[in-house]
Amino acid sequence: MTAEEGPSSPGALIAVEGIGGSGKSTLAAGIVRWLQSLAVSVIASREPGGTGLGVELRRLLLEGEFHPAPWTDAFLFEADRAQTYAEVIEPAISAGQVVVSDRNLYGTLAYQAFGSGLDLDTIDVLNRAATGGRYPDLIIVVDAPPEIAIARKRGSKQSDRFDDLDLRFQAKVRGGYLFAARRDGSRAYVLDGTASAEAVLDHAKAILNPFLSARHLLEAAP
Amino acid sequence: MTAEEGPSSPGALIAVEGIGGSGKSTLAAGIVRWLQSLAVSVIASREPGGTGLGVELRRLLLEGEFHPAPWTDAFLFEADRAQTYAEVIEPAISAGQVVVSDRNLYGTLAYQAFGSGLDLDTIDVLNRAATGGRYPDLIIVVDAPPEIAIARKRGSKQSDRFDDLDLRFQAKVRGGYLFAARRDGSRAYVLDGTASAEAVLDHAKAILNPFLSARHLLEAAP
Repeated sequence: MTAEEGPSSPGALIAVEGIGGSGKSTLAAGIVRWLQSLAVSVIASREPGGTGLGVELRRLLLEGEFHPAPWTDAFLFEADRAQTYAEVIEPAISAGQVVVSDRNLYGTLAYQAFGSGLDLDTIDVLNRAATGGRYPDLIIVVDAPPEIAIARKRGSKQSDRFDDLDLRFQAKVRGGYLFAARRDGSRAYVLDGTASAEAVLDHAKAILNPFLSARHLLEAAP
Repeated sequence: MTAEEGPSSPGALIAVEGIGGSGKSTLAAGIVRWLQSLAVSVIASREPGGTGLGVELRRLLLEGEFHPAPWTDAFLFEADRAQTYAEVIEPAISAGQVVVSDRNLYGTLAYQAFGSGLDLDTIDVLNRAATGGRYPDLIIVVDAPPEIAIARKRGSKQSDRFDDLDLRFQAKVRGGYLFAARRDGSRAYVLDGTASAEAVLDHAKAILNPFLSARHLLEAAP
């Protein structure tokens, strides 16, 4: 699944992607606060766990009580995604809102295809089904070397089953994010996640300002 | 996904399929007891809910607390299937055992593609991924008109979210099972589910006897 296929709509879907500890969740929250401060109608979404059902799936996926097989992981993430698109993303975008998603479809490509070695073409088919062909309008990958990202996660004590996998796995996942961004061309941006959270947010604002203005989703920005 | 693709192995996978109330679960249990009485090494599996993770997914899928979107349903059933193949079916078949599955991949094709109208080719891709290309060696569809099946379910008070859907939906699902059996040719059998449970089991034994004997999985049968 690539960027050319998505339908257009009055709102916009912005995906913030990256490995655990890259700073993507901090950036996504920062973008949401910034847009709120500008009185933009914005919705914060996340994957997994953006719906009531998704919260249950997030627990099954990340807490390590069960041991999902690689394809089980992929299907559970896609189930969560399909529910989030149906309940949250499609209604919001159709109503002209801006959705900022803390993780989106790059995650399954990076973790399950590049990390766990599942077939990339099949993951693309799954993503297309889960999203109904809706593709993010703009994607920001927060990129950081796994060594730095893992150290941050350990500091935060919020690591999950995937964060606990080794450096070699995280390096493959990082490569997946960079591959996806390259494949999506001009709608995907790679930001340096080793910079301060403020610097990363400033960089994202500089990208989002013209993007949202061109779509008349931003009246003014500082 | 069709029957020609599966790998061969020392054991055998027997799928018992059909709409809710058709008598498929009664038949699957009857086949397991019969094989046990012949000292065949047999494993009873079921979908959804054949693993610890699957029990959680079965609850999310069938109890109606959440309202999964159609593709969410498909992905949750496939997640359950992928886990069952990894934990139960592959290890058993590789060890030379006979697995009798109360429902298998026909279910997603019948309910999600034919019932809910999801794309059949995509469901085939999902099934291939979930099963690793392993296809049932023999499939028995217990066929019954939805009117009869629903009446049985109401009598048993064990109906789930899918059983509660209307006659028109159940008729489409039944059509999906019959399509799948036709597509699989000689390895799929359609039994008359309006017959008594004993008659259905006798019919199944007559099919299974030569099948299992030819594979040296059955030493003697009454």
